[in-house]
This record gives sequence, C-alpha cells and structure tokens, in this order.
Amino acid sequence: MIRVGVVLSGCGVNDGAEIHESVLTLLALAEKGVQVICMAPDIEQHHVINHLTGQVENEKRNVLVESARIARGDIRDLAAVKTSELDALIFPGGFGAAKNLSTFAFDGAKCQIHEGVSRLVKQIHQEGKPLGAVCISPAVMARIFEGHSLQLTIGNDPAVAEAVRLLGHTHCECRVDEICVDQENKVVTTPAYMLAENVAQAYSGIKKLVVKVVEMAEQKIRA
Amino acid sequence: MIRVGVVLSGCGVNDGAEIHESVLTLLALAEKGVQVICMAPDIEQHHVINHLTGQVENEKRNVLVESARIARGDIRDLAAVKTSELDALIFPGGFGAAKNLSTFAFDGAKCQIHEGVSRLVKQIHQEGKPLGAVCISPAVMARIFEGHSLQLTIGNDPAVAEAVRLLGHTHCECRVDEICVDQENKVVTTPAYMLAENVAQAYSGIKKLVVKVVEMAEQKIRA
Repeated sequence: MIRVGVVLSGCGVNDGAEIHESVLTLLALAEKGVQVICMAPDIEQHHVINHLTGQVENEKRNVLVESARIARGDIRDLAAVKTSELDALIFPGGFGAAKNLSTFAFDGAKCQIHEGVSRLVKQIHQEGKPLGAVCISPAVMARIFEGHSLQLTIGNDPAVAEAVRLLGHTHCECRVDEICVDQENKVVTTPAYMLAENVAQAYSGIKKLVVKVVEMAEQKIRA
Repeated sequence: MIRVGVVLSGCGVNDGAEIHESVLTLLALAEKGVQVICMAPDIEQHHVINHLTGQVENEKRNVLVESARIARGDIRDLAAVKTSELDALIFPGGFGAAKNLSTFAFDGAKCQIHEGVSRLVKQIHQEGKPLGAVCISPAVMARIFEGHSLQLTIGNDPAVAEAVRLLGHTHCECRVDEICVDQENKVVTTPAYMLAENVAQAYSGIKKLVVKVVEMAEQKIRA
C-alpha cells in the first residue's frame, strides 16, 4: 500500500495549516485508499492569531499539538519520520507553511526553512519520490530547491510568483481546478485558497494533485 | 438561493467541533451551490484538550473564536442569527456538541442545552425547516425535542442510543454511509465518526445528509 506523508503546520489559515486544504488532502488520499502519515514539527508557532478578529493574541501554541487537532490525534513528530516510511510527501497550505515551516511570510525569497522540513523534502526528492505542495507551500519548495529550475504554481499572485522566479524557478499561472506538474522533478502544485472562493473549488485542484502524486508514487514503486 | 446555517462548537474533536465533519459538511454544501452561514455561541469552551496527549490543559479558549478557524473567519455569533436568514440548519459533531453546546458528555439524557442553540433549533423546526445532525449531535436534538418521538441515529453506540430512547425517541441503527431520515419532523442524522474509520467513510454519510437537508429545504420553499 502506498504511504503518503502529510506535513501540517498548525491548525488555522492565519497561523497554521489551512484547515480545509488539510482535510481535503486527507479526504482525497482516503478516497485513493492509501496509508496516510500526518506529521508536524514539535516547535512553537510563530504567533497565535484570533481568527475572528484577525488580531495577534498574547498566547503560545505548539505546531505539533495544534496540528493534532486536524489529525484527530494520529500524528507524529516530523523529526522522527524516516523517508523509508514514505512513498510521497504532501504539504497543505495556510500561513503556517510561511510562518512556522519557513519564514517566507516575513522574508520572502530570503526565507529560512525549518531544518527538519528541509531535510525530509530533499531526501524524498533524492530518493525519486514525488512531492505535492498546495496554496503557499510551493514557496517553501522554491526555497528548498533554490536554483533547481522547478515548474511551480502559486496561482497568480504577482509578489509570490516573483519570489518563485527569483529563486530560479518557472512560475506557471494555474487555475484553481488545475495542477502544475513538474514531471522531471516529480513536484506537483495547485493554488487552492490562493485562488479558491469556496471549499469545493479548493477540492477540485487538491483532488487532482493527490491523484497525480499517488500515480507518481505508484510508478516509482513499479519501476 | 438556499441558505444553510452550520453550527460549530470549537475546533477539534475532543473539545470542539470535529474538524473533518465540519469541513466535509461545508464541502457538500458548496458542491450543492447553497449559501452557508457558519455560526457558534460566544462562550468559553468547557475545557481545552491537548489533542496530541489527550490531557486537559490549563488554558481557556472561546468557542466562537476557535470555530472561526474552521470558518476561515467567516462566522457569526449564534445569538445574532435569525431563523429568517436560514432555510435549514446543520450540526457537525465532535465533543464540542456534547461539552459546549450541551452537557451531554457529562449528564447524558439529563443534559442542559445552551439556550441560544435550543431557541434556534426549536424555531427552525416550528417554521417547518429541516435540521441535520452529524455524529453525536443527534443527542442534542434528542434532548431539545424530548418526548417528540423523533427517529434518530448515532450509529450503534449502546449508551448513547439508550439516552436517545430515554428521551422518548426511536433510535435507528445506521451504517456510516447511510442516513436516518425523519420525514415528518424533517430531521436528518448520520453517524460519521461515531463509526467512520477514515475521512472518506465520514464523507459518504455526510454528503447524503447534506443532499437530503437541501432537498427538504427546497421542497419547503416550493410549497
């Protein structure tokens, strides 16, 4: 059975993993009948945002602990996951990818990437296994693979697309219900809530991304 | 356009709204093209549970503020929502329904129901509009409509089913991919994570529930 890792970054679009994108990724994976391993780094969130008011709260939360809400408790510390346990790795979006897994929200193309995330992604890639990245997460891939000329999409946001290009990649404009496939590097991306106006639109692209990533993982195993 | 209210009870299966069930309800509603109004009571959560360890934390969180994470900020205080704005009302599950919207988790059949929730549900029913309840939420309906002989399902949990019967209703055993329809009272229920082993199983029943509730709302408008 194909085993797919899902990297979460908290629980909530403004300071963590985008909840809809995370659940839709899990739904599409479950529909494909694959085994899912949810994981997140055991670190403090960059900050906590009140999602009703948009204000930063004077509070601390842990990325792994909050991500466990989305995973219904079935989640592992990313630092303890080995690539030998995985056939593919997918990153849902949300500001958590740009604030907790990296500093992209603050530093753009010069952002730092969480060391454990960078290690896991590079190793998956070196082993010829596919990567999926949703919404803003392709910016994390862009920094990790700086200069490797990937084809990526973050929808059509000019500033983020420019950062992707600055990091030496091709940015492909992409509709919400489509995916951008870098066949050579086995990296699949989709805009989701970079463009989606509702959860059904987000699912249309995420479903295609999951199908493609699982297909690539199956091809790798058969090869 | 049909307008469906979705009542959230926090953000996380153990102390709030079950996240998968909530997002799947929103997905099925978006797929039907209806207008969604998310709402939650502006009250403190009964408690906060660390979803990684299962332990109660020494922390306070607000039901409306945490529910806003699932709703991506697009949510209203339940106390301010009028039934004239709604054609139907759906409750996803999660312990939040049994700890925040009611005291069912602690008091069973003798539980108290949040006054605003009780008011809204009774008024929707009086106006002949349909209600949907997922997972443990049918227990909340059972208490609100005590003695009204509804047909409800919470899957096959013996203790909860007994509480439903104690409150004067018929409990129907139901598979995860099926719904229990009380046509006369316009109450539709499905077990979801009372039985589901994964998110795809939960969606199979939730999708049917949403389709049925929207159909009943359309019939009411045409009548």
